[in-house]
Parts: sequence; structure tokens; C-alpha cells
Amino acid sequence: MTKWVYTFGDGTAEGEASMKNLLGGKGANLAEMSRVGVPVPPGFTITTEVCTYYYENNHTYPVELKDQVMAALHGIEEKMGRKFGDETNPLLFSVRSGARVSMPGMMDTVLNLGLNDKTVLGLAARSGNEKFAYDSYRRFIQMYGDVVMGVHSSKFEAVLDEVRETNGYKFDNQMTVEQLKDVVEKFKDICAKDGHPLPQDPMEQLWGGIGAVFKSWMVDRAIYYRKLNNIPGDWGTAVNVQTMVFGNSGDNSATGVCFSRDPATGENYFYGEYLKNAQGEDVVAGIRTPQPMTIFAKEKGNIDLPAMEEEFPELYKQLADIRAKLEAHYKDMQDMEFTIQDGKLWMLQTRNGKRTGTAALKIAVDMVREGLIDKRMAVMRVEAGQLDQLLHPMFDKKAKRESFARGLPASPGAAVGQIVFSAEDAEKAVHEGKKVVLVRIETSPEDIAGMHVSQGILTARGGMTSHAAVVARGMGKPCVSGVADLRIDYDGKFLKAGDVILKEGDMISIDGTTGEVMAGALPLVLPEMTGDFGEFMTWVDEIRTLGVRTNAETPLDAKTARGFGAEGIGLCRTEHMFFDPARINHMRQMILANTEADRRAALDKLLPYQRQDFIDLFTIMEGLPVTIRFLDPPLHEFLPNKREEQVEIAQALGVPVEEIAARTAKLHEANPMLGHRGCRLGVTYPEIYEMQAQAVFEAAVSVIKSTGKAIVPEIMIPLVGTKKELDLMKAAVVKMADMVMKQSGTTFEYHVGTMIELPRAAITADKIAETAEFFSFGTNDLTQTTLGMSRDDAGAFLPEYVAKGIYNADPFASLDQEGVGALVEIAVQKGKATRPNIKLGICGEHGGDPETIDFCHRVGLTYVSCSPYRVPIARLAAAQAAVRNAK
Amino acid sequence: MTKWVYTFGDGTAEGEASMKNLLGGKGANLAEMSRVGVPVPPGFTITTEVCTYYYENNHTYPVELKDQVMAALHGIEEKMGRKFGDETNPLLFSVRSGARVSMPGMMDTVLNLGLNDKTVLGLAARSGNEKFAYDSYRRFIQMYGDVVMGVHSSKFEAVLDEVRETNGYKFDNQMTVEQLKDVVEKFKDICAKDGHPLPQDPMEQLWGGIGAVFKSWMVDRAIYYRKLNNIPGDWGTAVNVQTMVFGNSGDNSATGVCFSRDPATGENYFYGEYLKNAQGEDVVAGIRTPQPMTIFAKEKGNIDLPAMEEEFPELYKQLADIRAKLEAHYKDMQDMEFTIQDGKLWMLQTRNGKRTGTAALKIAVDMVREGLIDKRMAVMRVEAGQLDQLLHPMFDKKAKRESFARGLPASPGAAVGQIVFSAEDAEKAVHEGKKVVLVRIETSPEDIAGMHVSQGILTARGGMTSHAAVVARGMGKPCVSGVADLRIDYDGKFLKAGDVILKEGDMISIDGTTGEVMAGALPLVLPEMTGDFGEFMTWVDEIRTLGVRTNAETPLDAKTARGFGAEGIGLCRTEHMFFDPARINHMRQMILANTEADRRAALDKLLPYQRQDFIDLFTIMEGLPVTIRFLDPPLHEFLPNKREEQVEIAQALGVPVEEIAARTAKLHEANPMLGHRGCRLGVTYPEIYEMQAQAVFEAAVSVIKSTGKAIVPEIMIPLVGTKKELDLMKAAVVKMADMVMKQSGTTFEYHVGTMIELPRAAITADKIAETAEFFSFGTNDLTQTTLGMSRDDAGAFLPEYVAKGIYNADPFASLDQEGVGALVEIAVQKGKATRPNIKLGICGEHGGDPETIDFCHRVGLTYVSCSPYRVPIARLAAAQAAVRNAK
Repeated sequence: MTKWVYTFGDGTAEGEASMKNLLGGKGANLAEMSRVGVPVPPGFTITTEVCTYYYENNHTYPVELKDQVMAALHGIEEKMGRKFGDETNPLLFSVRSGARVSMPGMMDTVLNLGLNDKTVLGLAARSGNEKFAYDSYRRFIQMYGDVVMGVHSSKFEAVLDEVRETNGYKFDNQMTVEQLKDVVEKFKDICAKDGHPLPQDPMEQLWGGIGAVFKSWMVDRAIYYRKLNNIPGDWGTAVNVQTMVFGNSGDNSATGVCFSRDPATGENYFYGEYLKNAQGEDVVAGIRTPQPMTIFAKEKGNIDLPAMEEEFPELYKQLADIRAKLEAHYKDMQDMEFTIQDGKLWMLQTRNGKRTGTAALKIAVDMVREGLIDKRMAVMRVEAGQLDQLLHPMFDKKAKRESFARGLPASPGAAVGQIVFSAEDAEKAVHEGKKVVLVRIETSPEDIAGMHVSQGILTARGGMTSHAAVVARGMGKPCVSGVADLRIDYDGKFLKAGDVILKEGDMISIDGTTGEVMAGALPLVLPEMTGDFGEFMTWVDEIRTLGVRTNAETPLDAKTARGFGAEGIGLCRTEHMFFDPARINHMRQMILANTEADRRAALDKLLPYQRQDFIDLFTIMEGLPVTIRFLDPPLHEFLPNKREEQVEIAQALGVPVEEIAARTAKLHEANPMLGHRGCRLGVTYPEIYEMQAQAVFEAAVSVIKSTGKAIVPEIMIPLVGTKKELDLMKAAVVKMADMVMKQSGTTFEYHVGTMIELPRAAITADKIAETAEFFSFGTNDLTQTTLGMSRDDAGAFLPEYVAKGIYNADPFASLDQEGVGALVEIAVQKGKATRPNIKLGICGEHGGDPETIDFCHRVGLTYVSCSPYRVPIARLAAAQAAVRNAK
Repeated sequence: MTKWVYTFGDGTAEGEASMKNLLGGKGANLAEMSRVGVPVPPGFTITTEVCTYYYENNHTYPVELKDQVMAALHGIEEKMGRKFGDETNPLLFSVRSGARVSMPGMMDTVLNLGLNDKTVLGLAARSGNEKFAYDSYRRFIQMYGDVVMGVHSSKFEAVLDEVRETNGYKFDNQMTVEQLKDVVEKFKDICAKDGHPLPQDPMEQLWGGIGAVFKSWMVDRAIYYRKLNNIPGDWGTAVNVQTMVFGNSGDNSATGVCFSRDPATGENYFYGEYLKNAQGEDVVAGIRTPQPMTIFAKEKGNIDLPAMEEEFPELYKQLADIRAKLEAHYKDMQDMEFTIQDGKLWMLQTRNGKRTGTAALKIAVDMVREGLIDKRMAVMRVEAGQLDQLLHPMFDKKAKRESFARGLPASPGAAVGQIVFSAEDAEKAVHEGKKVVLVRIETSPEDIAGMHVSQGILTARGGMTSHAAVVARGMGKPCVSGVADLRIDYDGKFLKAGDVILKEGDMISIDGTTGEVMAGALPLVLPEMTGDFGEFMTWVDEIRTLGVRTNAETPLDAKTARGFGAEGIGLCRTEHMFFDPARINHMRQMILANTEADRRAALDKLLPYQRQDFIDLFTIMEGLPVTIRFLDPPLHEFLPNKREEQVEIAQALGVPVEEIAARTAKLHEANPMLGHRGCRLGVTYPEIYEMQAQAVFEAAVSVIKSTGKAIVPEIMIPLVGTKKELDLMKAAVVKMADMVMKQSGTTFEYHVGTMIELPRAAITADKIAETAEFFSFGTNDLTQTTLGMSRDDAGAFLPEYVAKGIYNADPFASLDQEGVGALVEIAVQKGKATRPNIKLGICGEHGGDPETIDFCHRVGLTYVSCSPYRVPIARLAAAQAAVRNAK
């Protein structure tokens, strides 16, 4: 028979901390606390499996549940020496949700369950505190009405408002017993009028509460929260039924929420708040100002209220011991709830506390120093994504923010500036000393210079991997993309979203971490970087086995990435080098050429530029590996579509505009992503790749000569689908290497490898590895082809796909391990079968995603490569993968 | 030691017929003929491995080759009692190429090798025929000069022309001895002046001849031929060195080429031609009119020349016996060459004869009746592709054709008509009783009606699987696509290619079988269909295990396909039904709708049309399976891009044109192939698929009621990448099925399955099969995604890819088995692992390709589905696959 119910309390428990999946986080920790001798009000947990059963069986429970609940309930009655529903000495319960991971405030809770018109009398008599009894009853009716019976809370609040107003009360605890009794009657009337009279039978109340918790798993806000946090819907929630203890039963009672260390800064002092004579939600709700835990905190915060340490010195000491005990037990910072009832301390909850990135880092480093955890555990304590907080400027959290539009958090960080609507305007304004935010419908490669000088980028279209998003992340610039509500009028130079209209020059603030867009200039704060950061990262580097490189093609990017600890360049996209104004017309001449000779003439002009690019990169990287991807995009990306631009270029190049228009039309493609690009350009125009190879090798020779360092270029051929393509391209590269060696009288090492970015390449990787010396998984394109999904177009349906759980996350942000990952695994196995020492990297956007990095570690890649600002995150994620997958 | 040389002749041979890969077709058959006792002039074969060696080792031979050739040569000298280079009784050789498969006229031959200024005297003395000797010598010099030394043939021809003219000769055999001697001297002078004096050393001549054959493997015309016929370049050619026998050594000598049956009609009589006192090339060259073999042929052909049966009755009888012997031995129609020298018959070659489709069919059927072969062998004797010849009208082969442009043979058959440049013009002209050929830069779905009424379609752009090509094949209409040289001026209403300009209304002829385009109206002939065809196809159906369905959505297509033996519909593309003028505006209304309610209102109007479509198909298919694919293309395909069309539609729909323009712009996609289409439409707009499901099920109920037949619709969800997508779509379908069953009071069976057309679907097929009751491999899209290659754009590089051997064939025409096929195999294995009885089909263009069909048989698919006109071909290919892969 399945065990659906687990009891706890009184120094024993059927469950334990490791049973989070079954008991939820709260239930598992209540059991664990019971086991280690912390005083916990007795109770029982109904497992998450009941929740799953409930949703799979048309909202019904397993048949055995009722008996198991009754048995557990009787056990509690025995322990407490009181009975549920007893009219003289009633046992009361709280009913709370508890999923595997904390979903704060997302699901429902009912307290004081078991009160009715008769038991309230018993409670009053027994406690000798009639006011407390009726206060508890009115709270119960409001919660139960709202949570279980769906009576709108505002109806109850209206009654309370009236009492407060009539009597000039500031706080609810100012109400008299008579007033509370009156409120109770009015609340019951409200329920009855709403068609939901309050059940007087405690058992009916209990099952109503249990049902409400299970139902709350599927309310919109819970679904939304899970979506935001990638929590699968089939995990379900547990229900915790626990003996009520009352922090509001008199002045010798209290309730509080505390952390074993400061969750904002990580400092090691007892952090928290409590309220005398109050129930838990009073602390959270902020109706009364809570008091600090310690004298230290009181002084630190300049607080004018007594600390618990002063008011309840004995109990404080007991609590401080528990704090120490639990932190030592869990070896992590604890977030605890406690209640003091009539001078007795009860712990209601403990869990690992949420914390800021700054705090996470400090706590981890401190705990290592304290000998509480080792370095391997420490690196697990900072979420890789949290490092972002340490790397980008942020809005001051204290500032009030009112967003008028929201898009995708495309590149983290905060930006404030004057609105400009074109890249040229951005450059002009910045030249005049202004700070600007570039607002575009979408961006294109021609906007890069303008993006570079802007504080941030805001686009109406495009997803997490749109041009704007990718380039912004690469630059470490905040970006909000895909703001669907945004209307941009380039001619009128204004933007509109809802009622808000902003003109060119108006201040705007964008939060690339949340996707919010605000009018005006919000205050910014600089990220806090402590000395611990550096030390922590040395541990990270000791632990990880996966290399971390960067995607970079400019000297600035390369320098930034090295500063962040990149161990080489994993992807240098050479085409980005051709968009420079000094070069693009040579590129266009090359494209317009009708003969190989004309193409070669134009390429000859590009050669010195390319060579200098590589000299710069090799010099900065000082012998670290540099992987250079040859020209990848379709040639039409270099030609303009608009007539006026065509005219301009025709004049610049001295050719008839019709020629440019005709070539542009001829190069037009229905699906450019699947078109004449990558090595297909190299196959049809070998001279392009020959020029690039020559530039790479001549640059290598130059830097070898000038620095004496060994420069070992890695040349990467894109979009390979067959071994034969790579054979042809490798032959061209080898030819140029031989030529440069001969001409320079210098020998050098180099490697030729390929992107694996087509399913065909993955599936025939054994053959391709006969020629390829390394693979780099281009997971952007591999995702597009494997899923048959254009990242430029997926915005129309992908949000709905994620909402409906078809994909757990945006597959362009976090690798689709089941599909794309399976192909990567096949390619790794096949590649290693042919060439056991083959170097394996990943250079798609996914290379900076912690979950993907864990995958990369597991399948045995050599390194990941990501944008410069993601490098520290990738290093940490790699270390965490090493710890997580050890043994 | 490797054996590089194999001898034959005189009743024995070192090789045999099965060694074609090593000895080439000719060499293997010469060996085989020797073995079975047919008189063959002794000789030896240098293996194809020498050719491979030659090209892999910088044009050198294996060291052992020389000794092995010398040994073989001495063996022949012994057998013949003559010596190579002997001045009194010289042995002469022919040197011929011979690849695994016949490449007629593609490679080089040298005859009479061993003649020089001295041996010619010996030949003259020994034969007593000085004229013959010098005639042989002058032939040798011309051949050797041309083939081995690269002296242009026209220089020799000029000398011969002068002799003919001066003396008024019609034929070369009118030349006198003195004239021949003079020619010989002049020929030697030509060689010497060209810098290539004729070698007098017979051994030098021999090695020159051998080298010339190996070199000829890589000349342009041979490479081109191999490319056309999918013959790998690394097969190489063998070289056959064989004792010369002379059909031109007097009136008791002759030479001939004959077939054991008529290769054009397949009739069983001795077909062929011979010439008295002539060498082989005289027969082929057509200088003299050859004579028939038999009196029967003489009378049949109304020929005024004596038959061999009359002139050489004894030798004829011997040859006829050999004909019977060889046909019985090879069990196939033979193509033979023979020579009579001084009254002795020698066989120079036999091979399975090439034949027309008509002949192939007749010979196969006759041979079964004769008990020579069984039915399984018979079905192997007709190339599946040849059946096309029996199904489409053709140009009269006797008519002279001069093509002015050439494109891709996109849909076979011949078409003649007046040129029109738009689909509307086509409809108008046909309405006026004209026959037209539609000429477009490329076609789009809006052109379908115009394509339907045209005789054929000619496009400047697009490959074998462009819209024009696919639709034309589906309609069984001839189509030539991708004529790169073609300039089309829609405004001026003319086309231009090279110097040729044709205007609207001018007659044009296109050959969809060859890709040729001709001005004017070429005469057409109807395909010959004999009664044998039907019988043959019953054998085909007995043997094959693979089902054959058709891709069809119109009643006409469905009827045509059933006539061709389709066993169901494997792909009914419902979107084609929405382009009908009566419906498209409802479709557009649906697309323009802003709410689900508005969409449902528009869909309600489409429902009756869809229902009737399915009623028609179910009625025609009489209970055969019908697989209906739900809406697949992106919605923007239904909206016009041009302003004037938008205006028109806005008026028709009564909405502002701006609304249409805005929606069109919003729906625009960068890569529509990877965009918001397939089941992604079903996920975001479930009401569309619900309407389609309702139409399918209501149609099924209607036909079940009207015919009493069991109609079992198969509903196919397109572009599925994850199980969850299919779960959602299947749930919607099941809901509608339940509703229709309830409303109609009828129960019916149905199946829900999916296309496997994304790599992700293939790689997760085990999971998808939990929901899918059948898979249909959509290999068009699976090829596009696996290869990352847009079929609309591949024209820019694919020809070069095929030319460079990166792909052996167009992967959109014949399945890329190594890449795409590997994914299909994975999906088959995974699908069967989950659901052992899962139905597996293929419905891409590849479903009609014989090589792909063989693959489908091997991997264990249930059926293939192809366009109606390919159905007989697919049936035959399926039977051949069964035979080929038996055991």
C-alpha cells in the first residue's frame, strides 16, 4: 500500500530532509528539524504524489488517503493531549502548501483551522484570552473564505476598514473582544451571502483546506511562477497539516522570520525580524513595523525598537542556538520561521535561504574559511546566473520604478539615456557628449557602431537571440528586445506604448535583467565587487575540467574576455570584420565581380585588413588558442535592399545602380538561413577562403616573429554537412599554409576543424572527423535546423510553446538536450571513435548557459565558448558541473 | 603479388562474367565467351585496379604490370603462332577501354596496333592483299595520331577529302594501293609536323595505346557522361588488348553489330547490321549502308540489300547458334559484335543490350513465357525510370530537334503550345481553345489553375523540386525548370535565350525528359502501351512487399492514381484546397481575424468546402486508406505581397487595405521554411485543426452512410518536433471525433499520426511513437533541415556540389541515404521499439525515386507515397527492391 502521509514532530519524524521530492521542501525540513531535536509543532505531510494523483484522476484522492490522514491526526491528538474539534481544549491546525522548491506566496495557506462557533469558546476558556480566541477566529474565517471558498478578500477588508475608521484604530490588535465578535458575525454573513456558509465541522474544514492547497497548484499565478522559474508542472505540491501555535496569544507570545546570515550582503550575523503578539502574516504583511533580532542589528540599522535579544533574552539564546545548530546541520545559510506561544519557542520552518549574488559569494567564501564547507561545496552555493549581478551596473533597488512596457530580458544590466532612433543619430549624439539608448524596430549589422556607443538597446522585435540581443550580450550592453507593444515611428521620431509617448531626446531607462522599460532616468548603482570574488574564482578554476573560451572578433572583446579569465577564443566570426566602413565596399566589389580575377582583385584589397585583425587578436591572446571561423553569412547580407542605399553604393563603387540591384535580386533567398552560405561560399568561390587563410597565416608569422610566442591558429570551416566539403576546404587552407611557410621561411603549427551545426554533420561526424582536427558545436544553427525553427521568426509561437510546456525553456537560450543534445552526443561519440583526441567545443549562444554547460561537461566536451561578459559565469557553471557530476 | 592482367581466348580464360568490377564489362564478357566456347580472338585485360592505381599514383603503373603484360602477350603469340612486331607475319592488336558499365563512345580505342613501315609489308605479303594492308595502316595512323598523340582528326580527314574529291570517290574503299600508300606518307608527315612522329616500335605503340585508354577515363566527355549516369569516378576502366581480326581483308570478310532481339520494340528476331569487307567503325560511322542480318528483317524493313542469311548462309547459321547460345547463357538480350576474317567468324563482344522501355517490357514478358527467366528476374529487367516512357507523350524521335536552351528535366514528357507569360493568360487562351505552354520566372501557388490548363511549364528559376517541378510532376505535366539562360520580360511579353527571341503566342516545344527547349511545334507521338504492360505489373505487385500510395488532394489526382494502381492516399495536402478562389477569401478572413471568435466564424465558412473535399476523396478511394495532413504552410502564403493585390482583397473583404498590409508585414518571416507553420499553427490556433478534424470526420460519416464502406481516416499532424505538440493536437482531434460520433450517432475508426520531417522528430521518435499511430517521413523538409539546405535556394550551389562529387545526386530528387537516411533509420528503429506495429510511410518527393524506394524497403517502411504519375514506377521499384534484397 502506498504511504501517502508522513508524520513529524516531538523529536521523531517519518520523513527526512532528503525526501524533498516526495514531501516538498517545507515538509522535508519539518521532518528533518524534528529529527535533530528542534522543537517543531507536530503535524503530518500529505505527499506530492497525492497532488499528481489528484490531477491525473479528475480531482479525486487515492482511496487510502482518508484513513492515513485520520491515523496521523489521531497521532497528533495523542502527542498534544488535545483533540481536533474538541469544544473545551481544541487542537487547531495550519494547512500549508510545500513544493519541491520554494514558490513564495504563490500558493495558499489556511491557519487556525478547526475553529468554529463552539471551539472558539473552548479556545477562549482554555487560553484565558477571549480576544485572542476571537481574533484567531476572524482571521480563520477570512482566510478560509478567501482561499477555500473563493469569497473575495476585499469584502472582509471592507468590514475591518469600517471598524478601524469608526474607532480610529491604526492596528487590528486594537480591536476589543466585542468588536471582534461582531466582525466574526459579519464575516460569517459575508460567506453565507456569497453562497458559501462557513463549515462548522472541523473535518470538513480540514478537507476543504487540503483541497484548496492542491487546487492552488494550478492557479494562474502558480503556473506563471513555475514558467518563470522552469519548474515542471508535474512535480506537484505537498500539503503540510501542522498543529497551530500562536504568536498572538498574548504578550508572552511572538512570531518571527530570520536568516542565519544577512541574505542581502552575506554578513555573518543573526538577521531577521519578529513581532510580539502577532501571527506570521503580520510580519510579512508589513502592517506593524517588526523589531530586529539582535542588538547588533538594531544598532547597525539605527532602529528605535527593542531587539528580541533584549525583550526575550532566554528565548533569544535558545533561538540563537537553534540558528547555530541548523546552520551546522544544513551547512548553509538558513531562512527560518518561529513562533513563541506563551513563552515556548516553536520552529515552523527552516530552509536554505535565498540570497543575492553578493551574499551568495560572501557566505560561500566565509563558510569555507569557517571550515563549515569545502571549496567544492562553496562553488555550488553561488548560482552561476547570479554572477551577472556582480558584473553589470544595476538600477538602485530602492528607487521606485514604473514600467510602461515590457520585453525580453535580452542582455542583463541597466541602461539610462536619451532616446535615439537610428545608429547614426546615436553616434552623433554621443559625439555631442550625450548618453543614449538606441531604440529600433530591430537592428542589423549596419547598426553595430551605433549600438556600441549606446548605453543600451531597445527593440520592438526579435527574441533572446535576435541580432540586437546577441550583439548586445557580446558587448555586455543592456538590451530589452521584442517589446511587442512598442510602436516606433522613425519618421515622426517617437515611440508609443499604451498611453505613453516618448520623443527623440527624452530620457528612458531599460532593465535588461527584467525586460522592463521605464520613462525617465532611474538612478543607477555600480556593481559591488569584493576581494572575495577573485578568491572564489580561483577555486572555480581549480575544480572545473571544462575549458572556457570566448566568442570575440574585436580587440576590445578579446581584452575584456581575457580580463574575465577566458582561456582562448572559441569563435572569431570573420564576417563581422567586413562590415567596417573602410572595408565593406571592397567586400561589395568582390560580390559584384563577374569573374574570379575580379573577385581576387577585390579580395587582395581586403587581405591587409584581415591580416591586421588577426595580428591584433594573436597579440592580445598571447599564444592562447584562437579559433577563426571563415566567412559564413550569405553574400546578400553585405548588399543593401533599399534603392537609395543602392544608389549611394553605386556611386561609391562607380558601377551602374542597376548592376547592384540586379545582383541583390539574384542573391535574394527564400530561406537565407538554409542558403548559399558557410562553406558553400568556400566551395563556389574558393578564393575567398584562400584570402582568409593567407591573412591568418601571415598574421601568425608576423606575431611569431614579433613576440617569439608560438601562435597556433585554429581554422574553422562553417556549415559543413559532408566530409567532402571539408576535404576541399582543408586542401585550400593547406595550400595557403604551405605558400606562406615557403614565402616567409617560417614554419608554424595550425589546425583545421569544422563547426558541427547541421544535423547531417552530427550524424556523419565519424566521417568528418577523418578530416577535422576539432569540432565546435554551433548550437545556434544546430538548434534551428534540428528543431526546424528560425530564431528570427520563432517569436510568433515560442512564448506559447514555453507556456504550454512544449519546451521547458527557450531552446535558443538553453540547449534542448533531448533533441539537439542527442545529436551533439552522437557527434561526440562518432568523432571520438574516429579521432580519440579530437578537440570538442561549443560556440553557440548556449555556451554561456549554465544548464548547457553542465550538459557539455557530461558529454565530454573540451571547452565552451561564450560572449566575454558570460565568461565568469561559464567558469563557475563548469566548476559546478564538475562537482555535480563527480563519480 | 597482385594479378593485374587476365588472359582470354581459345576456349579458356582467367576471368569470367562475374568479374565486371575488376575486368570491366567488355573484358568480363570476352572471358566468359571464351569459357563457353564461342570463338574469341585471344587477348588480355588490364584490370580497373590499374586505372585506380594510375590516378592515385601520379599517372604511373604498378611495377609488376610490365612483366605481366609481356607474359600475356607471349601467351597470345604462342596461341596464334605469330609474333607482335614480326616483319613477315605480324600479330596486330586492338586496344579498347572497358568500364564496369558501358559508356558507349565515351572512351578511346586504337585498332591495328603493331603496324609500322616494316610490318605493313609483312601483312601485305602474308595476306596477299596489299590494299588491305595499307588501308589498315592508314586507319591505324589516324586513330593512333588522334587518340594517343592528340593530333586533330580533321587534319587527316582533309587528306582523305582531297583524295576523294580529286578522284570522284564516294567511299574510301575505292582508293587504290598507290593512293593508300600516299595517304600513309601524308599521315605520317602530319604527325611529324604536329611534333608527334609515329612510333615505329610496336611495344611503344602498345604502351601508348594503354596509356591513352587510362587517360580517356578522365576526359571531359567521360566525366560528364558519368555525372549524367551517376557512375562514380573511382570505378576506373579496364584495358582490353586483343588480337586484331580483319573484316576488311577481302570479300570473304565482314563485320557486324547485332542484337539477339530488337532493342527498340523487343520483338524476338535476330536484329543487326553488317558490312562486307569493312572494319567495325564503318558499320557505326554510317559511311556505307549496312546490310540486314536476316531475310525477315530485310522484308520487314523493305531493304534492297542482301541479308547475311543469304550472302553467308553457313556463317550466318553459326552466328545464329551463337546468338541462341549467348542469350541462353546470359538469359538476357545480347548486344554483340562480330567479325568474319577470311571466312572465319570471330566474336568481339557481347553484353546485355540497351533497350527502350517498350522493348525492355516486351523482352521481359516474352522471356518469362519462353521459360528463360522467372517473374522475379523479369521485373529486374525493366528500369523503373523507363516506365516513364510508357506513360507520357513524347516527341517523335525521327523529328529533327534544335534546342536553343536547356534546363532541368523537371517533369517528364513533351509539351507543345503557344507561349503565355501568366497563369491568367493561360486560362484565357485555353478558354479560347488554344494550347499553351506557361513560361514563368518561377511559379507560386496562385499559378496552379494556370498550370493545370497548360500543356507544360517552363521556368527560368527553380530546381527539380521547385514549386513548378513538384506541382508539374504531381499533375503529370511536362516541365523544364531552372533554364538559367532564359530572360523573361513580363512587361514586354517576350523571352530571350542567346539569340532567340520568342513572343507571347509563338509556338514552343519543351522536353521535360531531357530539359530541352525548342522553338516551334515539334511533332508528338502517343506512348505505346501494350497488353504486356498490365501483365507485367501483376507480377510486380505479386513480388513487392512495400505498399504504394499516392500524394493527391484533388479528385482528378486521386482517380488518376487509382488508375495507376495506388493503394491509398499517403499525403493529402489540405492547404492546396484553400487556394481555390471560392475559398481563399474565407481563409484570408480567418488570417485577418483578431480574436478566436472571428477566426472561428471564418473557419465555419470553410468547413463545408473541406467536408466536401474529403467526401469526394473518400468516395473515390472506396475505403482505401487516406492520410490527411492538416494545414502546413505559414499563413502569409495566403496573403498577397503586392500593393495592388492587397487593395483588391481589401475591397473584396471590406476591410481597410492598411489592415491587410499590416498583417502581411507582421506575418513576414526571415526563413518561412523554419517559421510559424505546421503544427505550430495548430498549437497557436487550435480552432483551425479542429475545423479540419470536424470536416474529416463528418465526411467519413457521410460516406460510411452513403456507401456502407468502412472509412478509416488517417490524420497526419505536420512539422511535429516534440511528443507534447502531438499530444496537444491529438487531443484536439479526439475531441472532434467524439463530438462527431455523438452528433451523428455513428462510430468510426480513425488514426492520428505525424510527419517525421524534422531531425528532432527523428531523434525522439521513440517518445513521439507513444502518441503517434503512424509516421510518414516528409523527406522534402527532412532533407532541408538535415542538410540545412533550402530547396528554393540550393540552385545557386547545388549543381556545383554535384559536379564536385559532394553529393552523388541532387538530394532533393534521390534521398541522401548517408545523412537523411541515417535519421530515417534511427526514427524507424525508435518508432518500432515503442510501437512494434507502427505504420511507416514516406511522402516526400523521394517516394517516387527508385533508389530511395530500395532504401525504404531495406529499412522496413510500410509504404511509399508519390505523385500519381510515379505510382507505376514506384510499384516496379518496390518489386525490384524486394528481389534485390531477398535473403
